[in-house]
Amino acid sequence: MEIPVVRNILEANDRMAARLREEFRRHGVLVLNLISSPGSGKTSLLERTLRDLGKEFRMAVIEGDPQTDNDARRVAATGASAVQINTDGGCHLDSNMVLAALDSLDVEHLDILFIENVGNLVCPVEFDCGEDAKIALLSVTEGDDKPEKYPQLFRLARALILNKTDLLPYVDFNVEQAAKRARALNDDLALFEVSCRDGRGLEAWYAWLREMCGRKRAKA
Amino acid sequence: MEIPVVRNILEANDRMAARLREEFRRHGVLVLNLISSPGSGKTSLLERTLRDLGKEFRMAVIEGDPQTDNDARRVAATGASAVQINTDGGCHLDSNMVLAALDSLDVEHLDILFIENVGNLVCPVEFDCGEDAKIALLSVTEGDDKPEKYPQLFRLARALILNKTDLLPYVDFNVEQAAKRARALNDDLALFEVSCRDGRGLEAWYAWLREMCGRKRAKA
Repeated sequence: MEIPVVRNILEANDRMAARLREEFRRHGVLVLNLISSPGSGKTSLLERTLRDLGKEFRMAVIEGDPQTDNDARRVAATGASAVQINTDGGCHLDSNMVLAALDSLDVEHLDILFIENVGNLVCPVEFDCGEDAKIALLSVTEGDDKPEKYPQLFRLARALILNKTDLLPYVDFNVEQAAKRARALNDDLALFEVSCRDGRGLEAWYAWLREMCGRKRAKA
Repeated sequence: MEIPVVRNILEANDRMAARLREEFRRHGVLVLNLISSPGSGKTSLLERTLRDLGKEFRMAVIEGDPQTDNDARRVAATGASAVQINTDGGCHLDSNMVLAALDSLDVEHLDILFIENVGNLVCPVEFDCGEDAKIALLSVTEGDDKPEKYPQLFRLARALILNKTDLLPYVDFNVEQAAKRARALNDDLALFEVSCRDGRGLEAWYAWLREMCGRKRAKA
C-alpha cells in the first residue's frame, strides 16, 4: 500500500520539475543541483564560485536546510541573491519548494542558478528539481568507499567534486580508488579535485561551468 | 492525503520497536543506535570499541547501508558478530529490518548490540529501532554548525561523539561552539571528544558504555 503513494509523490514532483525545466530553458539559465553529505563543502564551493565568477555571470542560490538561514547568509555575503528554504526536518528539496523560492529571484536575468540541497546522500537524489545537472560533492574525509555504498547519486550526477584535498596528507583516502568506483557507476562523470579552503583545482570547475553555461544559452 | 500514510508507517514502526525493546530488556542487552552523516566514523568507532572491549563484553553489530557489505566485513574482522542490511537505496533502518537481522544473532547471549544506521543526519532519527539510546556522531571536518542545522538528532541523542579530533589543527571547527549548540538543544547530552584514528578520548566512551551496560543488566 505504501509504494503507490510514494510513486504518486514522485510523479507529481516530476511533472512540476518538467514545468520548471521549461521555464529555465526559456530564460537560458543553467540550473545545478548540488548534493552531498552534510559538511562536504557545498556552501564553501558556492562562496568561492560566486566570488571568483561574480563579474562574469549573474548567479543566485536556493539554499535547503532542515533549520537556520546560516547558509543563505553566507552566500548573500558574496553579493549574490540567495533564498533559504527550511524544510523543517525534511530530508530533501523538491520542485514545489524550488517553485516557491523562484518568487524571490529574478530568474529571467540569471545565468546560473545553484540549488544547494539538504545535506543527505540518499533522499535528494530521487527528487528532480528541474535542474540541468546534479553535482555530487564528496569530501576526502568521508572515505573513498562512498560511491559504492551510496551509488545512486554517483550514477545520476554529471560531475563529482572531490573537496578538501588539502586534508589528503592526514586521512586515508585513495583518490584513484574513489574516481574508479564513481566512474564504474557512471563513465561520463566529470571529476574535479579541489580544495575550497586554499582554492586549488577550482579553475577546472570554473572552465566546466563556462562551457555548460555557453551550451545552455545556445539552447535558449 | 500524504500525512496519514506517513503517520501509519511511523506508528507501525513504533509498535514493532516496542516489541523489540521488550525483548532486549528481557535479555538485558544494551542496544545503541548510531546515527551520523556518511563518513563520520561510525564503523571506525565500532572497530575500535569491539577490539578494545572484546574480552569484557559480548557484542554484535547490525550494519545498515544502501549497498555493499563493506562495513559488516570490517566489523566481522574484529571477531564480533555482524549482520549487514542493504536498504537498496533506502535512507534509514526501521524496526522490521532490525527484527529480520535478529534471526542471525544470538541476542540472548549478548551484552551490547550496536545498530549502525544508514549515513544520514535526517531520516534515521524518525525511526525507533527498539534501542536504549541514539548515539550521534559528528566529525570535526563537517563543521560546528551541524547541531543547529540538523537539530532533531541532537535533541534525541543520549550521547554525542565528536570524532576525528586529530584533524582539529587543519580545519575550522570550534569544539566549544559545537558543544554549546548541541547542549542548547539537549542539556543531558553526554559528550565525548575522540579520534578513532589515534584512539584519544575513547576511554571516556568506554566508561560510559560500562555504566550503561551495568544499568541495563540491573533491569533485566
